[in-house]
Amino acid sequence: MAKAADVYFRADPWKIIEKDFDPAYSQVSESVFSLANETIGVRGCFEEGGSVSSLRGAYINGVYDTEPLPRSYRGIIDETHFMIPAADWLMTGISLDGEKLDLGKADFHSFRRELDMLSGTLTRSFVWRTASGRELRLTFLRFVDMIHRERAYQRVSMEALNYSGEVVFTSGLSFDVLHMGNRKCYWQEARTEATENRLMLQARTLRSGQEVFAGALLDMPGNAAIQRTGKTVSMCATLPLRQGREIHIDKRVVLLFDETAGETLWQSGLAALSESEKVSTEEALQAQREYWDAYWRISDVKIGASKENAAAVAAEQQGIRFCSFQLAQIYNGGSMRHNIGAKGLTGEAYNGHAFWDTEACCLPFYLFTNPQAARDLLLFRYNTLPQALARAQMLDCRGACYPIATLNGNEACSLWQHASLQLQPSTAVAYGIWHYVHVTGDRAFLYDYGAEMLLQIARFLASRVEKGGRTGKYGFFGVMGPDEFHMMVNNNAYTNYMGKRTLMCAMAALDALRAERPEAFAELTQKTDLKEEEPARWREIADGMYLPRDENGLIEQHDGYFNLPHTDINAIPVEQFPLYDHWSYDRIYRSDMIKQPDVLMMLYLYNTSFSEAEKRINYEFYEPRTIHESSLSPAIHSILAAELGKMEEAVRFFGFATRLDLDNYNRNTREGLHVTSIAMAWANIVYGFAGLRSDGDGLGFAPRLPERWNLLCFSVLYQGRVIRITMEKDGTRFRLVRGEPLDIRVYGKPRTVSKEEIIISGL
Amino acid sequence: MAKAADVYFRADPWKIIEKDFDPAYSQVSESVFSLANETIGVRGCFEEGGSVSSLRGAYINGVYDTEPLPRSYRGIIDETHFMIPAADWLMTGISLDGEKLDLGKADFHSFRRELDMLSGTLTRSFVWRTASGRELRLTFLRFVDMIHRERAYQRVSMEALNYSGEVVFTSGLSFDVLHMGNRKCYWQEARTEATENRLMLQARTLRSGQEVFAGALLDMPGNAAIQRTGKTVSMCATLPLRQGREIHIDKRVVLLFDETAGETLWQSGLAALSESEKVSTEEALQAQREYWDAYWRISDVKIGASKENAAAVAAEQQGIRFCSFQLAQIYNGGSMRHNIGAKGLTGEAYNGHAFWDTEACCLPFYLFTNPQAARDLLLFRYNTLPQALARAQMLDCRGACYPIATLNGNEACSLWQHASLQLQPSTAVAYGIWHYVHVTGDRAFLYDYGAEMLLQIARFLASRVEKGGRTGKYGFFGVMGPDEFHMMVNNNAYTNYMGKRTLMCAMAALDALRAERPEAFAELTQKTDLKEEEPARWREIADGMYLPRDENGLIEQHDGYFNLPHTDINAIPVEQFPLYDHWSYDRIYRSDMIKQPDVLMMLYLYNTSFSEAEKRINYEFYEPRTIHESSLSPAIHSILAAELGKMEEAVRFFGFATRLDLDNYNRNTREGLHVTSIAMAWANIVYGFAGLRSDGDGLGFAPRLPERWNLLCFSVLYQGRVIRITMEKDGTRFRLVRGEPLDIRVYGKPRTVSKEEIIISGL
Repeated sequence: MAKAADVYFRADPWKIIEKDFDPAYSQVSESVFSLANETIGVRGCFEEGGSVSSLRGAYINGVYDTEPLPRSYRGIIDETHFMIPAADWLMTGISLDGEKLDLGKADFHSFRRELDMLSGTLTRSFVWRTASGRELRLTFLRFVDMIHRERAYQRVSMEALNYSGEVVFTSGLSFDVLHMGNRKCYWQEARTEATENRLMLQARTLRSGQEVFAGALLDMPGNAAIQRTGKTVSMCATLPLRQGREIHIDKRVVLLFDETAGETLWQSGLAALSESEKVSTEEALQAQREYWDAYWRISDVKIGASKENAAAVAAEQQGIRFCSFQLAQIYNGGSMRHNIGAKGLTGEAYNGHAFWDTEACCLPFYLFTNPQAARDLLLFRYNTLPQALARAQMLDCRGACYPIATLNGNEACSLWQHASLQLQPSTAVAYGIWHYVHVTGDRAFLYDYGAEMLLQIARFLASRVEKGGRTGKYGFFGVMGPDEFHMMVNNNAYTNYMGKRTLMCAMAALDALRAERPEAFAELTQKTDLKEEEPARWREIADGMYLPRDENGLIEQHDGYFNLPHTDINAIPVEQFPLYDHWSYDRIYRSDMIKQPDVLMMLYLYNTSFSEAEKRINYEFYEPRTIHESSLSPAIHSILAAELGKMEEAVRFFGFATRLDLDNYNRNTREGLHVTSIAMAWANIVYGFAGLRSDGDGLGFAPRLPERWNLLCFSVLYQGRVIRITMEKDGTRFRLVRGEPLDIRVYGKPRTVSKEEIIISGL
Repeated sequence: MAKAADVYFRADPWKIIEKDFDPAYSQVSESVFSLANETIGVRGCFEEGGSVSSLRGAYINGVYDTEPLPRSYRGIIDETHFMIPAADWLMTGISLDGEKLDLGKADFHSFRRELDMLSGTLTRSFVWRTASGRELRLTFLRFVDMIHRERAYQRVSMEALNYSGEVVFTSGLSFDVLHMGNRKCYWQEARTEATENRLMLQARTLRSGQEVFAGALLDMPGNAAIQRTGKTVSMCATLPLRQGREIHIDKRVVLLFDETAGETLWQSGLAALSESEKVSTEEALQAQREYWDAYWRISDVKIGASKENAAAVAAEQQGIRFCSFQLAQIYNGGSMRHNIGAKGLTGEAYNGHAFWDTEACCLPFYLFTNPQAARDLLLFRYNTLPQALARAQMLDCRGACYPIATLNGNEACSLWQHASLQLQPSTAVAYGIWHYVHVTGDRAFLYDYGAEMLLQIARFLASRVEKGGRTGKYGFFGVMGPDEFHMMVNNNAYTNYMGKRTLMCAMAALDALRAERPEAFAELTQKTDLKEEEPARWREIADGMYLPRDENGLIEQHDGYFNLPHTDINAIPVEQFPLYDHWSYDRIYRSDMIKQPDVLMMLYLYNTSFSEAEKRINYEFYEPRTIHESSLSPAIHSILAAELGKMEEAVRFFGFATRLDLDNYNRNTREGLHVTSIAMAWANIVYGFAGLRSDGDGLGFAPRLPERWNLLCFSVLYQGRVIRITMEKDGTRFRLVRGEPLDIRVYGKPRTVSKEEIIISGL
């Protein structure tokens, strides 16, 4: 499995640069140049469209449609839902000398596209030469407003280089947009209006009945003609160009999706549009720069290298920042209606669905850079508790079963073997709640929301757990653990252990609630009809949970795993990857090859609950059996390898983590960015190389700087503090930037972090 | 699980009688009154249609269409196929006084419908009274020709009882027929022609491209007008009726489906129609009676009872004959293009698909009553060997993998968990070949066809088997055994054992072929590119196959079965059946409850290879864990119970076997008859109560007459002999009706059967 970089973009500390457009990379660039502000997202597609290969898509978080599925068996969903493209607000047409701008056909030069991570703007410029030899320099600027999240901006600048004359310019809004997969338009009943400088458009999805308002303010010289066709409205004007004089056309866009519909939404849309008129594009751009400046002050991860490694590390530095930038774009808190799709808002692959990656992989990034966002992510789960309760009932269980894939809280995964057998979304939500409260100390959240979720998840697990006929021990039967290459297994160690911890955590939460907020406890027991015997049974289950480990601490992934036929994963020819596409579906389930960490995932999540010896024996057993067909897999291995002092392996597994998408390692970046992998790249650095541990008492660090770096510097937010950690060859400096002094552990020893920098050398 | 009879039909030794039509039973009656001759099948629907509840369907064996399936993973089929209704040849319309005959609305009396199993005819008669008080007696007769299988006959007789006047009579052929499930017509491009007394119609399926010719000769007095609409052609005439004088309208039908198309088929159809004109309906009816007479001489199973049990046993007698009658209808040999659908030609449930039921359950009936038909069934598998070879490749295997559900040899089961994980169709084909050759001694078949199939099945198994990582023993991983309540299990005992026997059988067949027909052997090895090391590897696998049994011979159904949570099957409320409809799909897979015999199935098939002690301990262990959600299940238990001397249980499991459909025990007879269960009812009697064993050396019997019977009498064909077995209270008589004397075993002791009757008393 040799994955190789496909280097296309230029290195730069704060920018992603594409110089001289290569059409073969068009779709990859679209993904990499995606912009989003959590609410609005848009791929980096060319404003003018044309014949260049493209997966054009502009999205609004939470906008989806549904399709019915064939009825099959009880507990198997009969409807799925998926993100659909919303209004195309970048729609632009430019004609010169009767020639329509189309970079797939046009003669052009001096092409440059830049994503500026200091301002969150995307700029594209080039010189277009028409058949008659006229040269027009075009510059396209766009950004999505990080503060007023319903707003987006587009500026088109044109300068006639060797002539004066006219250009025909069109700008519009359109719901005539097609789903990437099935090329179907999911919008209907468009209402369009237009005035001198405004375009307004509202449409409804086919089945989910959601409505979206799109409006644009156009600052366009000259008299524009209004055009309406289908679900599209646009303005077209003939603009005079004077040689050497650049003109700008600004388009301020509002996209409103607030769960209202019809006239109510329309009026809100008009109001929002008027409101946006108060801010010029320049002012918005300035605010945008300030936003990102504040962001980077907390969230930047800085690395350095000596001269001989400078080039490679410069690429990594760019990669790490790109990861941070994308995470802030896809989720930065403020809305509890959204979660983090596996591809964010950068493409329709995975249908925009959020998985348990959110709690298992993304949460730590937010916990230590933006705890409010972490809280909001968990509130999404609280808001979708009713759906989880309903889902558990479909499965003949009680309590709350969280979905494996979802946008709206309902299960959207049409593969029953995942939807019905994977309990890890539920245990991950429980883990997320516990981890959040543990790290932030936010007891109010625990009492107001967490306890209820924990109660219902515990109840679900207690209704799903069974007793082995021979062992008499509790365990989960017929499950699929994190390793998706084994389904319908019994006593999956991860599932059993996470189940046990979830039950313990729920009991602890209820005990604390009863002690500290007796009224709230009474209210909750009444609301949930909690019986006194339930926690007692959870205790019994937790105590009697089966977790087979041999005398050395080697844990069997599930019953019978050790007797599975062995697959030499190194003998699999590279062209057989991904295995799902090249192996008969049943074949991938028949051997000891595992897709991604399972036992090791548990050792990562509850890291401080296992001894180093246990971690070592299990790492050494499972690592050679793991094929990493999940992009989340290598980071977990890297973190554990670093802990076990296997630095070479740790660095190897870290490998392309920071540039997974920039260098298109998986060759599928065209479909969208691997957003949750991006989160794991952050965790890989902070948990791996800085050795942060947040699941034990307080915070622990065990810095281990990779050989090729001579600097790793980042900050963490922790209970009102900002702690700056600077790892260098000669040691690690800890400094409190803000807040009260804090006791931490470094390499297992107690230390105090204060404004006075401390330096700790070596292990 | 209390299943109860829903008694509707009258008892009669040779007829099924419906007196006074109850519309609530309309669809059940349609199934029970189905007629077929292996090639043509038709449900017992009313000729005149009308508003009565109906699943109208006339079928031609092998006629199907296809539908694409959503693309998913490799090895999962992307197209399925299913039986569709073919030309409706019974189409009849009758109008009197401007009133259209419709038993859903009409005033009628003296209704009687009879299926006569001595002639294979269905008759329906009643008196229709119009609003004006006119009474018309109608009699409908139909049969499908058991000898000329493309022919069917319909006679409508009418007698005006209290007036003279006119009746408007329509008779037609139609391809405007709808699939039962999705109400879609799968026929297109109909060509219609009609002459004075002929109707001709040909149409093509939508996707499979099959064509069918339908023709009818109508002996109808008066001048008929021809009507063509859509894919329907008919004749309509006004017929004079004289009070008290019965008139007959005969319709001789030809339905041709011979894999040709267009003009070729059309011309064959015309020729077949002309040929059929040479035989009158009367003559055909006479031939039909003779056919069934000959059939019953061999295949009748006669039972008797003392007075106190007479009524119950009379019902059973009728039931047993109905089973035999249906089996002869659905398959009696002659075509190698057909197999036995789970519902025969009696309905579209199960899509007309044949399962491994054919070899595992139906074959014994044919082996001992019509060995030629048994051979033809196996030739169907030979003819579909190319599809089985292709299927194995889809599954990343070699050799031949036979489909779990099929009409044409291709896998049609869209549930991957069955299609990819169930190896029993392949091992059942191998077992069927072995059993057939073993019972009939037909070595020519083995050498010409059997050896090649066995070789390819063995090759498939050898490419699918794997070595357990810890045991180092061979076994099949990731399978679903006969017990479909456990999927993706390892070392399923049935699969491992049947695999081992299949490999041994293939080796023995190739050894015999090499010894006796060296040239044919050389040809086969060349054709199949058989490597010398292959059989050597089969030997290694067979010798090293894992079959866990404890010191007492208790066999674990699959790895980990003994540790599954226990389900008390008697505690499941009756309203939760069938479980597939009432339990979450994943839930049925999580306990030690099994759907149907699995270990016990192997003890049934290779009965003489296991000791009585082994059979007893396994029967006693698995019987209380079996929920019998397959209608094939109770018979296997009954047969083993009888062998173990548990006569009460044997009789209890036999229970409703003979009247499963006549009394609609499963409440789904409306969808069609349980044809393969019908075959197991025969096996239940012959293998169960007569104790026939055919898998050891020669034939063995161990008669055990159920308490409530005082007579069980049947014949078996065996290698050119007819042996008559008559079981009575005081002993069992064996008599050779035809052929050479034969050494058999009775209760384990050697006996010789000759024309001189022998009587053997007691055990």
